[in-house]
Amino acid sequence: MIRVGILGYGNLGKGIESAITQNPDMELKAVFTRRNPEGVVIRTEDVPVLSTDKLPEMTEEIDVLVLCGGSATDLPQQTPEYAKYFNVVDSFDTHARIPEHFANVDKVAKESGKTAVISVGWDPGMFSLNRLYANAILPEGKDYTFWGKGVSQGHSDAIRRVEGVKNGKQYTIPVEKALDAVRRGENPELTTRQKHIRECFVVAEEGADLAKIEAEIKNMPNYFADYDTTVHFITEEELERDHSGIPHGGFVLRSGVTGMNREHKHLIEYSLKLDSNPEFTASVIAAYVRAAYRMNQEGMSGCKTVFDIPPAYLCAQSGEELRKNLL
Amino acid sequence: MIRVGILGYGNLGKGIESAITQNPDMELKAVFTRRNPEGVVIRTEDVPVLSTDKLPEMTEEIDVLVLCGGSATDLPQQTPEYAKYFNVVDSFDTHARIPEHFANVDKVAKESGKTAVISVGWDPGMFSLNRLYANAILPEGKDYTFWGKGVSQGHSDAIRRVEGVKNGKQYTIPVEKALDAVRRGENPELTTRQKHIRECFVVAEEGADLAKIEAEIKNMPNYFADYDTTVHFITEEELERDHSGIPHGGFVLRSGVTGMNREHKHLIEYSLKLDSNPEFTASVIAAYVRAAYRMNQEGMSGCKTVFDIPPAYLCAQSGEELRKNLL
Repeated sequence: MIRVGILGYGNLGKGIESAITQNPDMELKAVFTRRNPEGVVIRTEDVPVLSTDKLPEMTEEIDVLVLCGGSATDLPQQTPEYAKYFNVVDSFDTHARIPEHFANVDKVAKESGKTAVISVGWDPGMFSLNRLYANAILPEGKDYTFWGKGVSQGHSDAIRRVEGVKNGKQYTIPVEKALDAVRRGENPELTTRQKHIRECFVVAEEGADLAKIEAEIKNMPNYFADYDTTVHFITEEELERDHSGIPHGGFVLRSGVTGMNREHKHLIEYSLKLDSNPEFTASVIAAYVRAAYRMNQEGMSGCKTVFDIPPAYLCAQSGEELRKNLL
Repeated sequence: MIRVGILGYGNLGKGIESAITQNPDMELKAVFTRRNPEGVVIRTEDVPVLSTDKLPEMTEEIDVLVLCGGSATDLPQQTPEYAKYFNVVDSFDTHARIPEHFANVDKVAKESGKTAVISVGWDPGMFSLNRLYANAILPEGKDYTFWGKGVSQGHSDAIRRVEGVKNGKQYTIPVEKALDAVRRGENPELTTRQKHIRECFVVAEEGADLAKIEAEIKNMPNYFADYDTTVHFITEEELERDHSGIPHGGFVLRSGVTGMNREHKHLIEYSLKLDSNPEFTASVIAAYVRAAYRMNQEGMSGCKTVFDIPPAYLCAQSGEELRKNLL
């Protein structure tokens, strides 16, 4: 049994908790929180909720600690800190800062002899893997990534900061026409506006100026101004009823050519359609928890990403079983 | 530079030759043939075509030998034989016999200290990898593989054996309705007939009984009887003009659930649309040639499959570059 600890009990931590119930070789050992543990109620029976202060005492009881904090401030500090004591997995997703995060974590994990897997999830994560495989196979080609249809937390937050807005949710939606052009092998150059549209569902405060809200959202720099954005005003009840989920997904495509005269076209496409973004991310993490545990058992320490890990390490089955059943 | 040898100059061997021109860190060192080398003309200048008899003398000049023979009789004999002398990559694709082939190759490669990668291509190969990743992520779910639209060599051969048939080509086509049901998360149980249709283009001999040919094809056990099959009679010119390519492709899907009550559905889909089946297979092999070379340099010997190889080994870029550009 792989004994798993969870640090942070938000959407992702809850996803890890439920993913563990789907992996018979794992057990949840404890949930750690920076809040008052007595205020945190988890759904797994007979598993303690402990303060993060207790973590250094738990090194003998936990094989892999999953860090469920945010990428902005939590993980840059937590992952190097806890890689001193534990094999860890995080979902650090600030693409531009991955090299720096990797270096920080690698240094600590090499010293402690622990295995740390960073940036696990679907993007970065499974999308990255698909970019890598597709680039390795088709060295001459063009990559495309489309996101959605799905809820963007950052854009939903931006809507809610607009004056007169009580609540809101934003969906990122890939432009079907652009996707189809890529699929036809046309290798289009696509602008931001041509790739995604943004759809907003907004609950306005009573008496608010709807036209003003709509204009303010549509013209918001960085978030919406570069996109075709639609704004729908709905009631709080409708928002709750129709938009309370956290779906997401997307598409990674590579279009390339082969042949002595580059005369043959090929398209590789990977896509995800997810009812729950955090639960799917957690499911990917659970598989890499297994890999971290095994690699550490075999003496492979330091920081790793999905690029470094042999696929077989993700599965509970033996090499023989995998070759027989999945190859 | 990785010095590559090709054994067998059919469609796959030609594909390897052209893939090498797309990978600047590889060079073609020699093509080996069981035929009279003087009768084999290749498209790369200043590269010798040699008899397979010369192979044992070339161990110092070739880093990786790509075995381009057939799975029925060539590879079961060739891969263990040449793993004595070379790092090798093959595309052994008889799924049921992979365990046996693996064991034979592993024994030899461990003794010789060489790295042998077997069953590389897209199925087995990239499709297998996608099955593995998807199963690791969604332990509770259902797998689907659809092939096509593409040319099946075996079924085209079967058509050509029918009396009165001069030439013919068969396309395997996935049933769109079945694919859509899978994509909707319905987890359908699909019969052979519900998954694929078979479309045949047949050139009949002059005066042949077309109705008899059509009936014989449609009722052919194993090949066509279990499918909805359509037969089109065309001229030799039409066959040459419209059906001389070797396109293929297909879809690997996994539909699964997460959540404490398994209340959220997820769909993972990987698909390929290939103008040239052998050239794409060769492109996958080229990436694994690099992996075989590197793993051997690092002292990892024995038989490997796509499941055992860390993705980063497929790419010419360093770990830093990959993390920066693709993660």
